[in-house]
Amino acid sequence: MSILVVGSMAFDTIRTPFGEAPEVLGGSANYFSVAASFFTDVRLVAVVGEDFPDQHLDFLRGRRVDIRGLERVPGKTFRWAGEYGHDFNEARTLDTQLNVFADFTPKIPEDYRDSEVVFLANIDPDLQRDVLRQVRRPALVAADTMNYWINGKPDALKQTLAGVDMLIINDAETRQLAKDSNLVRAARTIQGWGPRILIIKRGEYGALLFGEDGWFSAPALPLERVQDPTGAGDCFAGGAVGYLARRMRFDTATLRQAMIVGSVMASFNVEAFSLDRLRTLTTAEIDERFQAFKRLVHFDDLEM
Amino acid sequence: MSILVVGSMAFDTIRTPFGEAPEVLGGSANYFSVAASFFTDVRLVAVVGEDFPDQHLDFLRGRRVDIRGLERVPGKTFRWAGEYGHDFNEARTLDTQLNVFADFTPKIPEDYRDSEVVFLANIDPDLQRDVLRQVRRPALVAADTMNYWINGKPDALKQTLAGVDMLIINDAETRQLAKDSNLVRAARTIQGWGPRILIIKRGEYGALLFGEDGWFSAPALPLERVQDPTGAGDCFAGGAVGYLARRMRFDTATLRQAMIVGSVMASFNVEAFSLDRLRTLTTAEIDERFQAFKRLVHFDDLEM
Repeated sequence: MSILVVGSMAFDTIRTPFGEAPEVLGGSANYFSVAASFFTDVRLVAVVGEDFPDQHLDFLRGRRVDIRGLERVPGKTFRWAGEYGHDFNEARTLDTQLNVFADFTPKIPEDYRDSEVVFLANIDPDLQRDVLRQVRRPALVAADTMNYWINGKPDALKQTLAGVDMLIINDAETRQLAKDSNLVRAARTIQGWGPRILIIKRGEYGALLFGEDGWFSAPALPLERVQDPTGAGDCFAGGAVGYLARRMRFDTATLRQAMIVGSVMASFNVEAFSLDRLRTLTTAEIDERFQAFKRLVHFDDLEM
Repeated sequence: MSILVVGSMAFDTIRTPFGEAPEVLGGSANYFSVAASFFTDVRLVAVVGEDFPDQHLDFLRGRRVDIRGLERVPGKTFRWAGEYGHDFNEARTLDTQLNVFADFTPKIPEDYRDSEVVFLANIDPDLQRDVLRQVRRPALVAADTMNYWINGKPDALKQTLAGVDMLIINDAETRQLAKDSNLVRAARTIQGWGPRILIIKRGEYGALLFGEDGWFSAPALPLERVQDPTGAGDCFAGGAVGYLARRMRFDTATLRQAMIVGSVMASFNVEAFSLDRLRTLTTAEIDERFQAFKRLVHFDDLEM
């Protein structure tokens, strides 16, 4: 089934110990859409300026991404500049220019409104709720958020969460949102606000699923070559939610597979700057890496 | 088969956000021995002062720990005081009094010298090598170390590593020892110095095994109740090495099971101050938690 995704499109300038990539394609909706497009059709709602290149629109169109919901308005596209140190776990923001993204008001095209799966990328929780008002009974609403909204708009965020089935955030955000340093208690608190499924991303340490009937720990694949972690979280979400939309099943077994698919997509994405690795990625490579995750965690029953 | 362990016995004073435990039993050899004793016989070489309580010696004797190698000398037992914040990932050392541990020179009793498995807990690498000179052809030598020795005695440590089959350290120590921020490359560097097996402990994120034929990722069980993380790493090592000594097999499948057994023992140990949780722990509880780890990471093959 199709996924509707609402989020940002950006030009990122990335510095890492291994090089610099100036003005490369980024943005949560961009990473999410491309990752999800390996599994299902994607409907994209976002905004770009006049400087956004046609060649990227062609790339998205060529990848099962419906971009009729992508507004192109006068002005410049959102720009972000960030730097990573050797540990790659956290970006230091060097510059943010919201540009046309500052006035983004998501308008969901009429024939997107029946989307059965919705992903609300990290935008103002009031806008996220505005999107939910425009769609008709999706089977699954997944969302992301960030510390900026957790601190700045906690009440609006909680109102949004009441309409969210699956929240996908990182561990620091989980603790901050629930005001609890213990992840198990924090997860329970957040699940009490609406999301019956909480997925906690932990970067190089993998991801945790807190579901209705149990927990699941997805490992991260140890990688020798990490060039740029930007967008890894959105690629994780794109892979996981894209897989769920493909299967249209949200039971425990499928959620676990989706967590691994998300981890697979994130593990590929960090191998190159921007989403360049996804440009050449094949489904055979996805299958193969899924098996590598399987081998990574397999162990036999206890023998005493 | 019996394990010979050489390390420290201590009185720890622990402060956490949930309370303080003054002068409780600690020390690497203590935690290791008790955890390992659930799986095999343990021969302990360490030193304590005159203030070390008989009741603890009785406890060790009651738990398959041979303490004929435990020296009791004039003076006070090693004392350590530390504090944990809410995230529990790192202790802040408040006070260290080496006392009788300052002059510790391990003397391996004659009938310990044929031990087939040896664990060198975190002590001076020169002393670790001195232990290896006193034993006869063990089938497996496992060792721990810490930043103090990595910085202070790098050459002695490397000489020791040449005689070690399995190094069990944390991720920060791995990066520091190999002088490489990438764990995969760091592991390969360290394996080149001797240890064919490297186990990297990552606290609440689990542990990684870099073996001769592949990698394994052991999760950590999300825990709602963490009272005191002191000794978790030594309990992990005790469980893992204890299990290997019980099985006397060091193949990939057994190493993976051992990683989970280690994780199980660590997960119990953090539930109470000192090693109090291990005092009441049963093998049925160990079996049950091993199954919980199995459920935590299980996922089905990819269905597209």
